[in-house]
Amino acid sequence: MNLSQFGEFGLIDLISRKLGKTSKRVIIGVGDDCAVLKLKTQNSKLKTKEKLLLITTDTLIENVHFKIKKTSFFDLGYKALAVNISDIAAMGGVPTFAVVTIGAPKKFSVKKIEELYQGINKLAKKCQIDIVGGDTVRTPKELIVSITLLGEVEKEYLLTRSGARAGDLICVTGEFGGPAKNKFRITNADPATELRIGAERSRGAECRIRLKEARKIARARLATAMIDSSDGLVRSILEICKASKVEARIDLNKVPIAKGATLEQALYGGEEYELVFTVPKSKARGFKVVGEIVGKGQGNIQQLKGRGFDHFK
Amino acid sequence: MNLSQFGEFGLIDLISRKLGKTSKRVIIGVGDDCAVLKLKTQNSKLKTKEKLLLITTDTLIENVHFKIKKTSFFDLGYKALAVNISDIAAMGGVPTFAVVTIGAPKKFSVKKIEELYQGINKLAKKCQIDIVGGDTVRTPKELIVSITLLGEVEKEYLLTRSGARAGDLICVTGEFGGPAKNKFRITNADPATELRIGAERSRGAECRIRLKEARKIARARLATAMIDSSDGLVRSILEICKASKVEARIDLNKVPIAKGATLEQALYGGEEYELVFTVPKSKARGFKVVGEIVGKGQGNIQQLKGRGFDHFK
Repeated sequence: MNLSQFGEFGLIDLISRKLGKTSKRVIIGVGDDCAVLKLKTQNSKLKTKEKLLLITTDTLIENVHFKIKKTSFFDLGYKALAVNISDIAAMGGVPTFAVVTIGAPKKFSVKKIEELYQGINKLAKKCQIDIVGGDTVRTPKELIVSITLLGEVEKEYLLTRSGARAGDLICVTGEFGGPAKNKFRITNADPATELRIGAERSRGAECRIRLKEARKIARARLATAMIDSSDGLVRSILEICKASKVEARIDLNKVPIAKGATLEQALYGGEEYELVFTVPKSKARGFKVVGEIVGKGQGNIQQLKGRGFDHFK
Repeated sequence: MNLSQFGEFGLIDLISRKLGKTSKRVIIGVGDDCAVLKLKTQNSKLKTKEKLLLITTDTLIENVHFKIKKTSFFDLGYKALAVNISDIAAMGGVPTFAVVTIGAPKKFSVKKIEELYQGINKLAKKCQIDIVGGDTVRTPKELIVSITLLGEVEKEYLLTRSGARAGDLICVTGEFGGPAKNKFRITNADPATELRIGAERSRGAECRIRLKEARKIARARLATAMIDSSDGLVRSILEICKASKVEARIDLNKVPIAKGATLEQALYGGEEYELVFTVPKSKARGFKVVGEIVGKGQGNIQQLKGRGFDHFK
């Protein structure tokens, strides 16, 4: 069997099983936006809030996630970090440290690498992230940008995908389908390639991450589950359902659609970094509601199918 | 200018400068084996020893670091983690958590990916490392294995490259040139490719990491600086000299040469993960000594030139 048949999610499942049980200091390992780790050095008897370490990693590959000729390198760097920050935000956390790996062919322009780092640095400074290392390697052909980001979150503010309960409302920030509406077709390119090119026109400005909003939601302790919408709105809700062992009814009339985008693009487009979170009905005032968490057999989200991007399919 | 002309070390320097000053919580950022980070949550008033977080990352690329037809995937995984553990060890630390990124083309065999993870897991278990996440991405052609490893070290056991002083002796573990002696020439391959192929014959067994020894050295608080020898013995000593602003005299008669290897291979081969550390003369009893740290203008190491592997040259 090859990866094309097996699929990315199949591979992740396989790896998770292969890894077996992790030690008690791992609060969450594989399977959420971030790994959550209890630090040995922390003493819960302290009056300061107990903090957990967050770690997430994301890799962008030329001709899979972006085309070099159509890419602003500043935006590419910005985006490579943004996707990681969005993962930390979705856990209710604050990003702290990042390591950046760049792979490039021998003849690659130093100037472009500089531009790429400028994009990374711009966003890192904005979010008070220290870039603390990395690796530079040669590749035979394609450019690779890989970032691992650490973060921290107070134990009581941690939000995972698995806390949603029947009766909770499904809330979102922002609008959906914006990056997807700008896509244009490239032969043999993955959907992600098409989508990113639209986003790259924006010089980072459009690549909005909801770090502050996520933190506000986490600190208010209203939400029961949270995720970012990088793989598309429907896929994100499905992931919450899977982790929380619930179903969801999505109200298609209530999905906030970006100007010029279609409902289809809003539901499946992805490449935007909005928050999708669940809140008990009594506490959801002021949030944009797109649906409700329901019990087994009562949902409509399964019928919408997960059409989010799978790297190997 | 392109990367080929610029060189890897040039690029790292450039990036370091671009990053500018990091915050006070960064004890060491770019420029050593690991980044060393002060955790906000730590309270130095506690009686427990203050611990620092370590993070390191390393990426292996097909046709640059290994050839797929000659590679045991178990060994490849084992090695990908080993190089990171060696970096944590060289700081005096203990590895804790890792995230693993695998990039592979669509048609790549799942079985081989499994073997690769088996190699990673075998070593992770042995060293009590939790694999806590990662990323899987499609690549157009080449296989990529990228690992970020976290570790921790008590503040007083931390060993960097920069503490060596004139009069210290240069000590090493093990022997040198072993992996290099097995190399055979491949047209257009980087030195690293050639070297690794030899090492890959060993099913992980030969890929010895000095984690316990490093920890012993760190806890004894005898050493003034430490590094691993992954880029070759001469390059490692040069890195200590550069960071410590000293020079070194190496005694070529005292370099422990692996059976069947030449002095040249022992000095420049690399791909072995021995420790190179400096110890004040009065405390060096029992260690294998290969030279001495000396003041400016008194060394012979500069003449031996850094011929360690540069990815872009």
